[in-house]
Amino acid sequence: MNWNSPTIHDAARPDFGRQTRKGVPEVIIAERKTVEQSMEIAKRFLEATGRAILSRVPPELEAHLREEFAGQADLEWLPVPRAAVLRHPDALPPDAGGRVGIITAGTSDMPWAEEAALLCREMGCQVHTVYDVGVAGLHRLWGPLQQLLEEVRVDVLVVAAGMDGALPSVISGLVDVPVIGLPTSVGYGMGGKGEAALLSMLQTCAPGMAVVNIDNGIGAGAIAGLIANRMAANRQGGS
Amino acid sequence: MNWNSPTIHDAARPDFGRQTRKGVPEVIIAERKTVEQSMEIAKRFLEATGRAILSRVPPELEAHLREEFAGQADLEWLPVPRAAVLRHPDALPPDAGGRVGIITAGTSDMPWAEEAALLCREMGCQVHTVYDVGVAGLHRLWGPLQQLLEEVRVDVLVVAAGMDGALPSVISGLVDVPVIGLPTSVGYGMGGKGEAALLSMLQTCAPGMAVVNIDNGIGAGAIAGLIANRMAANRQGGS
Amino acid sequence: MNWNSPTIHDAARPDFGRQTRKGVPEVIIAERKTVEQSMEIAKRFLEATGRAILSRVPPELEAHLREEFAGQADLEWLPVPRAAVLRHPDALPPDAGGRVGIITAGTSDMPWAEEAALLCREMGCQVHTVYDVGVAGLHRLWGPLQQLLEEVRVDVLVVAAGMDGALPSVISGLVDVPVIGLPTSVGYGMGGKGEAALLSMLQTCAPGMAVVNIDNGIGAGAIAGLIANRMAANRQGGS
Amino acid sequence: MNWNSPTIHDAARPDFGRQTRKGVPEVIIAERKTVEQSMEIAKRFLEATGRAILSRVPPELEAHLREEFAGQADLEWLPVPRAAVLRHPDALPPDAGGRVGIITAGTSDMPWAEEAALLCREMGCQVHTVYDVGVAGLHRLWGPLQQLLEEVRVDVLVVAAGMDGALPSVISGLVDVPVIGLPTSVGYGMGGKGEAALLSMLQTCAPGMAVVNIDNGIGAGAIAGLIANRMAANRQGGS
Amino acid sequence: MNWNSPTIHDAARPDFGRQTRKGVPEVIIAERKTVEQSMEIAKRFLEATGRAILSRVPPELEAHLREEFAGQADLEWLPVPRAAVLRHPDALPPDAGGRVGIITAGTSDMPWAEEAALLCREMGCQVHTVYDVGVAGLHRLWGPLQQLLEEVRVDVLVVAAGMDGALPSVISGLVDVPVIGLPTSVGYGMGGKGEAALLSMLQTCAPGMAVVNIDNGIGAGAIAGLIANRMAANRQGGS
Amino acid sequence: MNWNSPTIHDAARPDFGRQTRKGVPEVIIAERKTVEQSMEIAKRFLEATGRAILSRVPPELEAHLREEFAGQADLEWLPVPRAAVLRHPDALPPDAGGRVGIITAGTSDMPWAEEAALLCREMGCQVHTVYDVGVAGLHRLWGPLQQLLEEVRVDVLVVAAGMDGALPSVISGLVDVPVIGLPTSVGYGMGGKGEAALLSMLQTCAPGMAVVNIDNGIGAGAIAGLIANRMAANRQGGS
Amino acid sequence: MNWNSPTIHDAARPDFGRQTRKGVPEVIIAERKTVEQSMEIAKRFLEATGRAILSRVPPELEAHLREEFAGQADLEWLPVPRAAVLRHPDALPPDAGGRVGIITAGTSDMPWAEEAALLCREMGCQVHTVYDVGVAGLHRLWGPLQQLLEEVRVDVLVVAAGMDGALPSVISGLVDVPVIGLPTSVGYGMGGKGEAALLSMLQTCAPGMAVVNIDNGIGAGAIAGLIANRMAANRQGGS
Amino acid sequence: MNWNSPTIHDAARPDFGRQTRKGVPEVIIAERKTVEQSMEIAKRFLEATGRAILSRVPPELEAHLREEFAGQADLEWLPVPRAAVLRHPDALPPDAGGRVGIITAGTSDMPWAEEAALLCREMGCQVHTVYDVGVAGLHRLWGPLQQLLEEVRVDVLVVAAGMDGALPSVISGLVDVPVIGLPTSVGYGMGGKGEAALLSMLQTCAPGMAVVNIDNGIGAGAIAGLIANRMAANRQGGS
Repeated sequence: MNWNSPTIHDAARPDFGRQTRKGVPEVIIAERKTVEQSMEIAKRFLEATGRAILSRVPPELEAHLREEFAGQADLEWLPVPRAAVLRHPDALPPDAGGRVGIITAGTSDMPWAEEAALLCREMGCQVHTVYDVGVAGLHRLWGPLQQLLEEVRVDVLVVAAGMDGALPSVISGLVDVPVIGLPTSVGYGMGGKGEAALLSMLQTCAPGMAVVNIDNGIGAGAIAGLIANRMAANRQGGS
Repeated sequence: MNWNSPTIHDAARPDFGRQTRKGVPEVIIAERKTVEQSMEIAKRFLEATGRAILSRVPPELEAHLREEFAGQADLEWLPVPRAAVLRHPDALPPDAGGRVGIITAGTSDMPWAEEAALLCREMGCQVHTVYDVGVAGLHRLWGPLQQLLEEVRVDVLVVAAGMDGALPSVISGLVDVPVIGLPTSVGYGMGGKGEAALLSMLQTCAPGMAVVNIDNGIGAGAIAGLIANRMAANRQGGS
Repeated sequence: MNWNSPTIHDAARPDFGRQTRKGVPEVIIAERKTVEQSMEIAKRFLEATGRAILSRVPPELEAHLREEFAGQADLEWLPVPRAAVLRHPDALPPDAGGRVGIITAGTSDMPWAEEAALLCREMGCQVHTVYDVGVAGLHRLWGPLQQLLEEVRVDVLVVAAGMDGALPSVISGLVDVPVIGLPTSVGYGMGGKGEAALLSMLQTCAPGMAVVNIDNGIGAGAIAGLIANRMAANRQGGS
Repeated sequence: MNWNSPTIHDAARPDFGRQTRKGVPEVIIAERKTVEQSMEIAKRFLEATGRAILSRVPPELEAHLREEFAGQADLEWLPVPRAAVLRHPDALPPDAGGRVGIITAGTSDMPWAEEAALLCREMGCQVHTVYDVGVAGLHRLWGPLQQLLEEVRVDVLVVAAGMDGALPSVISGLVDVPVIGLPTSVGYGMGGKGEAALLSMLQTCAPGMAVVNIDNGIGAGAIAGLIANRMAANRQGGS
Repeated sequence: MNWNSPTIHDAARPDFGRQTRKGVPEVIIAERKTVEQSMEIAKRFLEATGRAILSRVPPELEAHLREEFAGQADLEWLPVPRAAVLRHPDALPPDAGGRVGIITAGTSDMPWAEEAALLCREMGCQVHTVYDVGVAGLHRLWGPLQQLLEEVRVDVLVVAAGMDGALPSVISGLVDVPVIGLPTSVGYGMGGKGEAALLSMLQTCAPGMAVVNIDNGIGAGAIAGLIANRMAANRQGGS
Repeated sequence: MNWNSPTIHDAARPDFGRQTRKGVPEVIIAERKTVEQSMEIAKRFLEATGRAILSRVPPELEAHLREEFAGQADLEWLPVPRAAVLRHPDALPPDAGGRVGIITAGTSDMPWAEEAALLCREMGCQVHTVYDVGVAGLHRLWGPLQQLLEEVRVDVLVVAAGMDGALPSVISGLVDVPVIGLPTSVGYGMGGKGEAALLSMLQTCAPGMAVVNIDNGIGAGAIAGLIANRMAANRQGGS
Repeated sequence: MNWNSPTIHDAARPDFGRQTRKGVPEVIIAERKTVEQSMEIAKRFLEATGRAILSRVPPELEAHLREEFAGQADLEWLPVPRAAVLRHPDALPPDAGGRVGIITAGTSDMPWAEEAALLCREMGCQVHTVYDVGVAGLHRLWGPLQQLLEEVRVDVLVVAAGMDGALPSVISGLVDVPVIGLPTSVGYGMGGKGEAALLSMLQTCAPGMAVVNIDNGIGAGAIAGLIANRMAANRQGGS
Repeated sequence: MNWNSPTIHDAARPDFGRQTRKGVPEVIIAERKTVEQSMEIAKRFLEATGRAILSRVPPELEAHLREEFAGQADLEWLPVPRAAVLRHPDALPPDAGGRVGIITAGTSDMPWAEEAALLCREMGCQVHTVYDVGVAGLHRLWGPLQQLLEEVRVDVLVVAAGMDGALPSVISGLVDVPVIGLPTSVGYGMGGKGEAALLSMLQTCAPGMAVVNIDNGIGAGAIAGLIANRMAANRQGGS
C-alpha cells in the first residue's frame, strides 16, 4: 500500500508462483507497458524463476533486451510474433510430454499461432504446426491433418483463423481430439477485426470445440498446453 | 395523394409491371400486413397478372385464402415456409430454363431455402435441393454436390446456413458456379440470430460468392433466378 | 437430392456415426423443430444407436415423447433443462472414466449446467456439481472447490455464470485443471443477455480457460467430456 | 508440417490451381503481409502461372516490385486502387467474353470499383465504368445507365456506394440484370465506415441484388466476372 | 415531493403549458402506461386544455376511452396508428396555416406516417399524404411529388421509409424544401428493426435533411409542424 | 456438492449473512425463478432473518405469497414495481438514519425508482421521492430539488431517467451531493431499451455522478443506502 | 462512360446546379480526396459558379490553395474547422435573410459548429453563435439564449454537443423554434465517439428537434439554412 | 454571443465557481485542445482560483507548462497519467478529511487510478493506493484490503480494472463501503477497449457498487472524493 505516487517497484506484483500453482508461466505482454516497466519486470522474473517470456515486444524494447541482458541470459527471439524468451542456461523447460498441434487457415494468422506455439513449448509440450490450409482450398488440409492425428497423435489442436473463421468448425467436425478455436484479427469490412471469425467459432455446429478471444495466442497456448500436459501426466501414470 | 386518412386502396400501389420490367415477380410479404390488406393486394395481383405469391402467411390469413379464393383460383400451399401461390389455371409460369441448386446446412434452414425455391420456380427455373449437409459432417456433402454440378449442371447455387455460416464458404472454395450465401436466423447466444452466419459469409476467403440478408429467402431466389434465367436465355441465343 | 418439396425423411440427414467418429453423441435440439420433426429424428436415432438425446423440449413434445415411446424405450426426464434421454435398456452409456466438475455462480444458471452434466454423463463421464457459489459471496466457494480438486480429482471444470461472469476467472486463477467457461443469459440491462458474461470470460486475465457460446450447455459438456475421457483413456493406457 | 518455426516457404501454400478450379485467379492482398512475404509469393505465382496480381500495395512494396521484376515481367500499375499486375508477355488474359458494368455513387468509391474492374479484366471480361452518379443528383445517372443496358448490353452490374448506400437499390429497382452491391467505407459519424451502406444494401426493397463486404472490390469483381463469363460461355454454346 | 409511495395524481405532472410554450401539444404515449394512468392523464388534459391526444393505444384502453368519455367529449379514432383524439366541441385546432407533405416508401410505413399527420393536423397544419412510392418502383414517385411541390407548395416534407431507407435521400436530392427523414422498423435480418434505414438517412449524401428516431412519427410531426407553422406565420407577417 | 441432479434445497445457497457483512439485505429477484424456487427461498430467508424481500414478482407468485404466508408474516405489497416484503412483526428495519432523495424524469420510470426506494427503506433510510420532472419541462424541477437539498438535506440522490437520459446530468451540474444515475428501459427506436440513457449518463460532463445498469433499481438503492447510512453513522459518531 | 481507367476529369461529375436546384451549395469535403482531386474540383467550381467551398482541408491542400489561387480568387480561411472559401470578388453570397442561431455545449464542439456557420453564411443567412454553455453549468445558458430568441429572433437553432448530448434536449424543452441537434465526436470510453450524444438526441423527450449525423456540421448548416431562408422568403412575401 | 468567428477568449467559458458550487474542481482535459487553448484556460484558472489542474497533457503542452509558468506557479507533474497541477504557494488544497482507497487489478490500470488519486487529493482527501492485485492471483489481495478497511478505515473504494473487470465485483462482495468501479481500456480482441470490463461491472451480482465510464479516472475521483468528504464533514459535525 502506498501513501504517495508509486514507483514501478511498488506498482507491479509479478506472480512468480503461477507456473507452480497453475502449470502455466506468466507472460509479460509488453505492448501496454513502457520499456522501463517491461525491463524491470523481466529482470525480476529472470531472477526469481530463471526465465522471462515477453510477447508483443516493440522494437525499442527488443533493442534493450538484446543489449542489457547480453552475458546474463540467453535470448531466444521469434520474429513473426515479436516474442522473446530470456533464459539462464540451467533453466530449460521440463519435458512435460504434451503433444499440441497448431493449424492456421492463412499465413496472416501466423503471429498468433506462433504465440501459442511458444507458450506450449515453454510449458514443455511438443508442438507441431501446419499453416495456410484454409477453406478456400480444403484439398491442402487432408494430408497434414491425418499426419497430426495418426502419426503425431496430438492431444489437442489449436486452430487459428481470421476472416470467415470456418476452418476450426470444419476440423472439429472431422476429429476426435479437443479443438481450441483461435480467431484472429485478419479480415476487412464488417466483422473484419476478428469478430466474424470469433462469432462463427462460438456458433460452431461441430461439437468438441471451445474458443479464446481474438488474437489471444497466449491464452490458446495456455489451455492447450494444460490439457496436453495433463494427458501426458495421465499417460505416465501421474494423476 | 390523399387529403384525408387513406383507405387501403389508396395506400397500396402494387407494382404489377415488376415481372416484365425486372424479370422477378412481386411477392406479398404478409407478416407485417393485416389480413385485410394482404387479401386486397392478393386479389388485385390475381386480377392484374393471373397470379399472387404470398410469403410468411399467418394462420388466419391462410384460412381466408383457402375460403375466399376457392373456385376462383388454384391455391398451392407450402407448409414449411408458410407460403402460398394463387393462380388462374391459364397462368402457368413460363419455362425460362434457368437451373438453380439450393443447399442447406441443417434442416432448420429449410423455411428460407424453400422460399428461395418457390420464387425460382415461379420465375420458370428448374430447382434442385439438397438439405442438411453442414460442416459438422462434411462427408454427407460430396455426393450430392457432384450430382448438382455434373449431372444437373446448375447455373447458380444458393447455400443456406445459420450458426457458424461455414458451409457457403466451403462450397464456394470447391465449385466454379456463382454462389449466393443465404444466412439464416438459426443459432443461439452471441451472433445467434444469424449475425454470425452473415458476417462469416461476408468475410469469406473463397472467391465467387455474394450474400443476401438473414432469412431473405425471397431475395436469394430473386437474384439466383435472374442469373440462371439470363444464362438460359444466352444458351438459347436470346441475349 | 429432391426435385420436389421434401418430406421430413428426405430433409434430415442425422449423423448416426458422430459418437464413433467424434466421441460425442448428437443431441436433437428440439426448440427449433416441429414436434413431428423431433419425433421422427428421435425415432431414427433410437433405432440406429439405441438412444436419443433431446434438449430444450417444449411441453407438447414432452407429452408426445411420454406417450409414443412408452413400452419401447425408457425415458429419463430432466425438468430443469427440459431435456430427455430415450434409451433401450441394453444401451447404457459406457463407463469412459472421465471426471468432470460443474460449478455455477447462481441457481439461475442451472438449466445450462444441467445440459452440460447430461451430455457428459451420456459420454460416460462421472459428473460432480456445485451450484450457487458466485462472487457476491465467495466464502461459499472454497470448501466445495477443494473437494472437487483433491477428493474427486476432476480432469476438467465447467464453470457457468451469467451477469458479471466473474466466477470462471476467479476459479481459473486458483486451479491447475483446464476450465471451460459457460456464460449464461442471466442478467439485465446492457449486456444482460449473457454478452457481459461472455465478454468478461473472453477477456479473462487468468490463464487456462476457453469458452463456449452463451447458454451452450451442450457444447460445454461436449468439450469437457472429450477432454476428461481422453485423460481417462490415458490413465488406462489407452492412447 | 513443421517441427520448428517456419520460414516463409513453408508457411505459405499459394493456390496456383484456383483459376482453373474456380475460374477466378488468386489475388495477393499485400496490406497484411511483409514486403518480403509479398515478393516471395508474387515470384512463385509468376513462375507457376505467368502472372501475379497484387492489391493494396504499400509504397515500399511498389518500389520493390518496380525494381526487382524489371526485365523479367511487365508491370501494370493502377494508382487509384494501388494495385499491380506482373505478367510474362505471353500470359495475356483470355478473352472470356463477359460484359461487366461498374457504377459508383461518388469519386471516393473509385479505389474499390477499380479493384473490381481489375479482377474482371484479368478474368477476360470487358469492363465498362460510370463514376460519380449518386442519388444526390440522380439526373446524372439516366444517360450512362441506358447506354450500359442497351448499347453495351452488360451481363451484370457492380454498383459501389458509401454513405447512404442508396444507389444500388435505386438501380436495382430499374434494371433487369443482376446487381452486385459493393458498399464502401466512405462516410462519417455513426455507420460511416461503410456499415450504413452495407446494411442499406442488405435491406434493399428492390429484388435482384446481392452484396459483398465493405471495400471488397476484389470479391465483387470475382462474382461479377464469374457470372458474366458463364453468360458469355452460354452465348458461345459452351455450357 | 412524496414521503410515501405515490398515487398516480402525485406521480404525473402533465405539461399543460407545452402547446403555448412550445407550439406543440403533449401527446400521451399509452403503450408504457397502465389503462388507469392513461385514463387519468387524458382526463386531466381534457379538463385543462379541452383536448387529449393519445398514441399507441392498446385495445383495452380503446374500450375504456370509448365508454368513459362518451357524452363528455368527441372521440376521433385513427385505426392505422391506433391513436385517439378526445375533444370538447369548442376546442378545434387553430388554422395555423402550415403545409406539410408526408410520403412513405411502403404501406407498412403508414402507422408512423399517420402519427406524424395526426400531430401536424392537431397543430393546425394542412397535411397531404402520398403512400407506397419507394425506390423499388421510382416511376410511381414523380407525379405525386411534383403535385406536392408545385400545387400544394408544401413548407416541409416528412419522408418515412424502413428497409433500405433510401427514399428520403432520393427525394432530398430533388427538392428544395427541408426534409425530415422518418425511419421505420420495417425490415428483416441485420439492421431490420429500422437501424439500416436510420443509418442510411444519417449518412445521406443529399443536403437539406435531418432525421428523427425509428418509428418516432410524433417527433417527426412535431418538428415538421413547427417549421411549417412558423413559415405560415411569416407568410402572414407574424414573426 | 451433488452427485445427482440437485433438488432446490441443494441448489440454492442463500446468503443470510449479507446484511451483516455488507449492510445490504439480499433481494430475491423472482422473474427468473419458478414459483416453487422463489417460495422456498423466501421461506428460508423469513426463518433465518425475519424478513424476505422479493422484486419483479409475477402474478402467480403474488397469489402464492398472499395465500401461503398468511398468518405467518405480514406482507407489504408495492404494486408499481411488483415487489413484496414479508416480515415478522418483530423484525422492523433499523432506523439507520440515511437520507435518500429519488427523482424521476417521467412517470414511466417509477417502477425502478420504487425498487430503489424499497431497498433504501429496508436498509433503514428515510426516502423522499420527486417524480416526472424531466428536461422537457425543466421549470417543474427547481422547487422540489431545492426542498430536497435545503429542507430534507439528503445525503445522496438517485436520479432515474429513460429516453435521452439527460436529467441526471442536469441535476449533477447543480448539486453538491453524490448522484447515482439510474437509466431505465423507457424509450423507442435506436437506443430505446435504455442504452441511450445509460450511455448519456456514462458520458456526463457534470462531475460527481456514477451509474448502475439499466432498470437496476435494486442496485441503485443498495449503493445509495450504503452511502447515506454511512453518512448517518458519521453524523452519529459511529465510524 | 469509360472503357479504360479514368482520369480525374472523367471520374468527378461536380453538381454545379445544386445551389439553384436545392438552395444549398455543394461543399468539397477534402479529407478523402487527394490534393490533386480537390484542386481540380475547386477550380471547376470556381469557374462555373464563382465560388468553391472546401471543408476538412489537410495542411498540404491549404498550402496549394494559398499558392495556386493567389491573384485569381480571394481566399477566406477558417482555422478552427480548417475550411476555406475561394471567391471571385463579384460572387458575394446573396443576403437571403435567414437568421440562424448556433450553440455549443463545449469549446471542443467548435469545429463542427463553425462548419455549420460557414455553410449558413454562404447560403446568405445571418449567423449568431454562443459557445460553451453545456449542462455542467447551465447558469451560463439563460442570458445568451434569451438574446437569441428575443433580440435576434432566430428562425432556427443548431445545438452542438458531444459527451452526454443533453444540451439540445434541454434547449428544445425551452424554446419554440425548430432545433437541429448536432452530435459531436467529443467524449471518451463507451459511446465516446459521439454515439452517446447522437442516441441521446434521437431519444429526446422534448418535441421539436431533429438531428444530423455525428460531426456533420455541413449537414446541420444545410437544413438550418434552408429552413431559415424559406422563413425569410415568407417574411418577404416570396413563397 | 459573437457575430463573427470567435477568438479563444470568447469561445471558452471556464466554470470558476464549480469547486464552490459542486465541491469538485474543474479539470482541463488537454487531449482535445490545442496547446494555445489549454495554456489560455490554465492561465485564467490560475488567476481566478490559484490553481489549475490539467489531465492527459501531450508532450508539447508539458514543455510549454514548464517554461511559461516558471516563477509564477509551482508545477506538480505526474508522469504516469501525464497530469499537472499548477499552484500558487498560498493555494493549498484544504484538508477536507475524506479517506479514499484506490485499488487496481493490474499495473496497466495505473494511469487512470492515478487520475482519480490526483483529483481526490486536490479535493483535500487522504488517498491510499494498492496496485496489481487482480483475480489472476487473488492471494495478493487479502492483506492490503484488510489494511484499507481496518487500519485506514476508508470511506469509499475506487477499484480499477480492465480485461475481465472482475475485481470490483469480487471486492464489492466482501466489503461494506461503497465501491466505485472504474473500467479501463486494457484488453484485447472483442470487448478489449474496456467494454467487457464496463459491462461486467454494470452486471455485478455484488450489491453496493456503481460505475463510471471507461478510463474516466477524473470522474471516479470526483464522486469518490465527494462521498468521502461528506462523510468527513459528518464526522466533524458539519452536515
